[in-house]
Amino acid sequence: MKIFSFGKRFLSMFIIISLLILIVPADGDCQIRVRSEIEIPDILGFLTLKCDFHMHTVFSDGRVWPTIRPEEIWREGLDAFSITEHIENHRYRDDVKTNLNRSYELAKPGAEALEIMIIKGAEITRKMPPGHINAVFLKDIDKLRTEEYKDAVKAAVDQGAFVFWNHPGWTGQQPEGKSIWYQEHTELYERGWMHGIEIVNQYDYYPRAHKWCLDKKLTMMANSDSHDPINFEYNFHNGEHRAMTLVFAKERTIEAIKEALFSRRTAVYYKNMLIGEEKYLREIFNESVEVDGADVTIKGKSRVYIQIHNRSEVSFELEADGEVKDVSIPKNIILYAGKTVLLDIQGKSEKLTGREKIHIPYKVKNLLIAPDEGLPVEFKIDATFIPAEKK
Amino acid sequence: MKIFSFGKRFLSMFIIISLLILIVPADGDCQIRVRSEIEIPDILGFLTLKCDFHMHTVFSDGRVWPTIRPEEIWREGLDAFSITEHIENHRYRDDVKTNLNRSYELAKPGAEALEIMIIKGAEITRKMPPGHINAVFLKDIDKLRTEEYKDAVKAAVDQGAFVFWNHPGWTGQQPEGKSIWYQEHTELYERGWMHGIEIVNQYDYYPRAHKWCLDKKLTMMANSDSHDPINFEYNFHNGEHRAMTLVFAKERTIEAIKEALFSRRTAVYYKNMLIGEEKYLREIFNESVEVDGADVTIKGKSRVYIQIHNRSEVSFELEADGEVKDVSIPKNIILYAGKTVLLDIQGKSEKLTGREKIHIPYKVKNLLIAPDEGLPVEFKIDATFIPAEKK
Amino acid sequence: MKIFSFGKRFLSMFIIISLLILIVPADGDCQIRVRSEIEIPDILGFLTLKCDFHMHTVFSDGRVWPTIRPEEIWREGLDAFSITEHIENHRYRDDVKTNLNRSYELAKPGAEALEIMIIKGAEITRKMPPGHINAVFLKDIDKLRTEEYKDAVKAAVDQGAFVFWNHPGWTGQQPEGKSIWYQEHTELYERGWMHGIEIVNQYDYYPRAHKWCLDKKLTMMANSDSHDPINFEYNFHNGEHRAMTLVFAKERTIEAIKEALFSRRTAVYYKNMLIGEEKYLREIFNESVEVDGADVTIKGKSRVYIQIHNRSEVSFELEADGEVKDVSIPKNIILYAGKTVLLDIQGKSEKLTGREKIHIPYKVKNLLIAPDEGLPVEFKIDATFIPAEKK
Amino acid sequence: MKIFSFGKRFLSMFIIISLLILIVPADGDCQIRVRSEIEIPDILGFLTLKCDFHMHTVFSDGRVWPTIRPEEIWREGLDAFSITEHIENHRYRDDVKTNLNRSYELAKPGAEALEIMIIKGAEITRKMPPGHINAVFLKDIDKLRTEEYKDAVKAAVDQGAFVFWNHPGWTGQQPEGKSIWYQEHTELYERGWMHGIEIVNQYDYYPRAHKWCLDKKLTMMANSDSHDPINFEYNFHNGEHRAMTLVFAKERTIEAIKEALFSRRTAVYYKNMLIGEEKYLREIFNESVEVDGADVTIKGKSRVYIQIHNRSEVSFELEADGEVKDVSIPKNIILYAGKTVLLDIQGKSEKLTGREKIHIPYKVKNLLIAPDEGLPVEFKIDATFIPAEKK
Repeated sequence: MKIFSFGKRFLSMFIIISLLILIVPADGDCQIRVRSEIEIPDILGFLTLKCDFHMHTVFSDGRVWPTIRPEEIWREGLDAFSITEHIENHRYRDDVKTNLNRSYELAKPGAEALEIMIIKGAEITRKMPPGHINAVFLKDIDKLRTEEYKDAVKAAVDQGAFVFWNHPGWTGQQPEGKSIWYQEHTELYERGWMHGIEIVNQYDYYPRAHKWCLDKKLTMMANSDSHDPINFEYNFHNGEHRAMTLVFAKERTIEAIKEALFSRRTAVYYKNMLIGEEKYLREIFNESVEVDGADVTIKGKSRVYIQIHNRSEVSFELEADGEVKDVSIPKNIILYAGKTVLLDIQGKSEKLTGREKIHIPYKVKNLLIAPDEGLPVEFKIDATFIPAEKK
Repeated sequence: MKIFSFGKRFLSMFIIISLLILIVPADGDCQIRVRSEIEIPDILGFLTLKCDFHMHTVFSDGRVWPTIRPEEIWREGLDAFSITEHIENHRYRDDVKTNLNRSYELAKPGAEALEIMIIKGAEITRKMPPGHINAVFLKDIDKLRTEEYKDAVKAAVDQGAFVFWNHPGWTGQQPEGKSIWYQEHTELYERGWMHGIEIVNQYDYYPRAHKWCLDKKLTMMANSDSHDPINFEYNFHNGEHRAMTLVFAKERTIEAIKEALFSRRTAVYYKNMLIGEEKYLREIFNESVEVDGADVTIKGKSRVYIQIHNRSEVSFELEADGEVKDVSIPKNIILYAGKTVLLDIQGKSEKLTGREKIHIPYKVKNLLIAPDEGLPVEFKIDATFIPAEKK
Repeated sequence: MKIFSFGKRFLSMFIIISLLILIVPADGDCQIRVRSEIEIPDILGFLTLKCDFHMHTVFSDGRVWPTIRPEEIWREGLDAFSITEHIENHRYRDDVKTNLNRSYELAKPGAEALEIMIIKGAEITRKMPPGHINAVFLKDIDKLRTEEYKDAVKAAVDQGAFVFWNHPGWTGQQPEGKSIWYQEHTELYERGWMHGIEIVNQYDYYPRAHKWCLDKKLTMMANSDSHDPINFEYNFHNGEHRAMTLVFAKERTIEAIKEALFSRRTAVYYKNMLIGEEKYLREIFNESVEVDGADVTIKGKSRVYIQIHNRSEVSFELEADGEVKDVSIPKNIILYAGKTVLLDIQGKSEKLTGREKIHIPYKVKNLLIAPDEGLPVEFKIDATFIPAEKK
Repeated sequence: MKIFSFGKRFLSMFIIISLLILIVPADGDCQIRVRSEIEIPDILGFLTLKCDFHMHTVFSDGRVWPTIRPEEIWREGLDAFSITEHIENHRYRDDVKTNLNRSYELAKPGAEALEIMIIKGAEITRKMPPGHINAVFLKDIDKLRTEEYKDAVKAAVDQGAFVFWNHPGWTGQQPEGKSIWYQEHTELYERGWMHGIEIVNQYDYYPRAHKWCLDKKLTMMANSDSHDPINFEYNFHNGEHRAMTLVFAKERTIEAIKEALFSRRTAVYYKNMLIGEEKYLREIFNESVEVDGADVTIKGKSRVYIQIHNRSEVSFELEADGEVKDVSIPKNIILYAGKTVLLDIQGKSEKLTGREKIHIPYKVKNLLIAPDEGLPVEFKIDATFIPAEKK
């Protein structure tokens, strides 16, 4: 076997964890602790880190103990997470001592033992506007306990935090779930106090927020906002996964994640969909897809098969984006995750001869480069046409 | 996307197939034709080709038309196959014209369109001894239609065929399914007319035949002997796969398969088990498994986790093969296919100090290097011991 | 255990089958021959028989031997089938002797051994109009070998056959796949020579044909038109099933199926959808769904849960069909197949008091009583409203 | 639909739950809250209630908030549960206020809203002997907080509690995991202070404890001892279920469960196995299995098929338990959960004639009536033998 780290992702290797003896029993017979890697390729020389920057525990209104969170993150194949308790809402205060920094402290040893990065964060939880705001890469969460929301955001920014607006289209705070941008958001934005927006929170995608990120150069975020054991919220059994932010980072460190977030190098993994800037989604597509063949001979109206393998875990849904002059192409084709499928093309004429470069145009409907706009891609084929034989 | 062939496996690319227009309709709406690659790595500079050298169609006693076979092979991720009709038993002769070369002719265009290698073969079907014998890489099957079995085998050998004994422990021909080697087999073997043996046929493994292959330097074969649509015989739904021969070939050609078979470069993929010579199984294990970590610090009796990823589709079942002096190790561990699991090791003493190279010994129970003998492997760890802190 | 027949469906019990010794080997170790029952309830005193009246084998242009068909039918939980070879198109005539009655003869013993009903049928295969027409319950298929299509249909009708128009919207015969009714169809219809229409063939649903059946009082049919091993055509692994006709029959006999077809007592099972007359679909819904509760107390704006169990294998997709005065109801609810789900309803006012009968209206989107028209259903609740307590 | 309760199991119907508004948000889009019923039949006029009497939350050393427990129980199809915090071990006391009755109080409203029965309990947690002891149907847990374990048990018994010994073969308290019965257990037993024993705890089965229950007339218990979100402990995805106690109760009430426990009317559901007294397991088998056929005609050495349907969710693993005079039977047969399979029997002679009652004997290996002893069952067949025809 190879003794090296997984795809350069793990920096520190094995660490001391006497704490874990208690919290992570090693069962002899049962071995249910298994990690499933998330198959989305690295691109452009960056690592594609899978991150969730928004979740809760019993220290605000979640229903799990903090040590559960790194285990879930590890099992699901993510790399980094942040527990972001509501600063203003500790539902279980009668039973659980209030301590905003406590989730982080409790979850840290388990995260480190599993080589998961944990980022200190919190959720500033106000009525709309400005609604809920997450701050991550914090040092002292207590400083965010202020009367005015602006003071809380300022306290976060002063600690160097990355600040983003949570679920801007949440029906709980926006009429009919429509994302509305208020004067308060303009103010935060203009002060440089809003660095990103959740365009996806748990099960919901907010197309308006997607547009805002593109127009205002904000970082696109997607998070689970998990309150319960994660399997209460997503049906992994049926192939679901939590909403997450893909961070294109220079290395597998917390600092590198922070740098990437401030540099807007993210995309969003939501259901069977990737959402992000065209330059990133195109690379993910290109690194995922292998086309078997460079040269094809088409005899009259015969049919040839081009084999396309998709090594990622996203099934790409392609729709023909125009006609091709000399060949017929399928209107729809799904490049199933982890599978090889056939692109069958067929000559349009019995008489064609000669050699030609054919560009076969598709839109990938579930790689969203803007609201309602799929990524355009092309398959390039070298075709030699020869006439059909007489029968 | 990358425009190149899959892992060097496809040589010829796209070929002319007007024939296919009829037999492989391209359905617009339904796209159920999907190939699942078999994840077993290439080793030692060879390609690991997945092959099935034994199956039937309506031209002997099978229940499918020959064009079904290459489609099944493609969908299941195999690379090459041989239809081997019984020479002496054409069950459907009243309805289907007898023609021993016909399955090959009919199946060839579909195989080529899908870039699957088809090898001409046949099954010499006699009572025991010597029982049933397959010959593959034939030129003219009709020449094998002889009264004496020896003449049939000779006719095959004269064509340069690779000849192997089928299901030597078949209950239909061996009392209680015990593999018995007869004088007739000695004779074939000594003449150089027996090159391999099926140590697995369909659902059955023959440990005696396994031993014979090791002792007599014969090639280990495993085949499906499929008569029905393959999904009648294997429950793919539940993760089953057909019995198959892994051929370690210099390139993805029929000639290279033949060379590898005569050179005994094969292993057997049977249920969740690989069977073969140690040198091949060790490489498959090593190429499949990644250990994350090189250096570990153990404080007293604390526990550390080593992450092991298995990129193959075989779940390796490990059993501790001895004690380790200074650390406790799990007695059993399963390296689940495609997953990452934890090897947790624990210091045995509170007082140990110093640096040590630790070899952790396991047997891989389902990588069989001889009957009942698993492959021994070791994980090598650099450990630094430091005493536990006082509490 | 109970020694009786399954739900009254099996009449004859165990039958003599020496033929089967050859074609159905009893394997000691492997037991992959398993039948999955189709969970759709009996209704209105009729048995709900699952039938497929359209498929092919090597005796026309299919790619399996006829004995495969009853095995597939048994495994998939169906009750009856018909092999309907193309009378005019025997693709494999060079290799397979032409004999229109042969598939039936070959498939019959296996069908009977598995207690599956086999119905003799054939497909009159002409260009449009009138296109392809199936005739089932035939006695002698050779009589349908005529020059004029009308003579073939007449020969079928003379034998007492049930005659239906196949795939009326097939792109191979109808421009753009639009179902067009020609003068020829009027003629057949007016003579009483067209008893039903396939409103579903394999993967395709024809809404126009659905309308014709409702308007012209024709029997709705759905069939697989299978040519290949069925698992090449449907992905059972992912929960797919073949298109089939549900026949509401007085007993489990071929005669009873015939009577039901001529009496238009059918519905169509297609994807996760049932299509048919309202009276049948309503009964299937009612027999499938159990509501746990008759009486509910709602305190102010609190929430109560009603548990709904769906014992069928169809997941019913409900959409609210109007408002309810005093309570809020979910807009969408899926009654998952075989599962129990919660219908949560919530009081609209803090002050309501008194007792009330509440009718909660939904449309079942995937129970189609006409093109684009879901079945309306109601849940009836007895609610007692009491005011919320002061806090 | 039918407006009635599920199989008589639900007594009270819909109840007031204003509390739930906060803790169980009703999400419009996501509907992941689904209950899967456990398919094990009612027997002997009793309801077969599925119960788990042993689990933990953050109020001792578990890692979930108490409200999670009733939700898990509901989703998994159980009927009743008890949270049994360690009286002597509140791991999170620095963060969570110690209150032994609190888990019950917090979990109760959610349980009731979902019609799940919650039973107050606690775990007396002492070193071996006597080890850990559960007491359920308690009134005031605080009374069990005593110095001497006997006083704690007495306090439980005084409240009318049902008392059982937990995991008697736990490696943490018994050398090499061997169940050892100490003098202290004799003392408890003789005083009538031990009513049952866990013969299964989480993943482990204790055959010695199984024997003790049979010999000493103690109630057999199986529980999950869940500390984490249940999906961390069982792989439901792969068909696993939690260890649970089947209680054969007169009605669906807490009182009826208590009566059944004291009357020793239980069995254990563990992996794909049921463990219990023969009289209960036999009834479960009989109520689960339907044999299609009463009468069979065997012609010479021909083969006939008997169809066997298993409506339960346990796949019964049968092994032939002796020979049958005139017919051959399969050595092994699995009656797959929810499926129909074939029992094929074959005449032994070409010449037999006459009518005969045949008893076909099997052992059900995974219905354990004592350690290592499967339930014996018989299939009764009426066979008519007729001689084979001359060919």
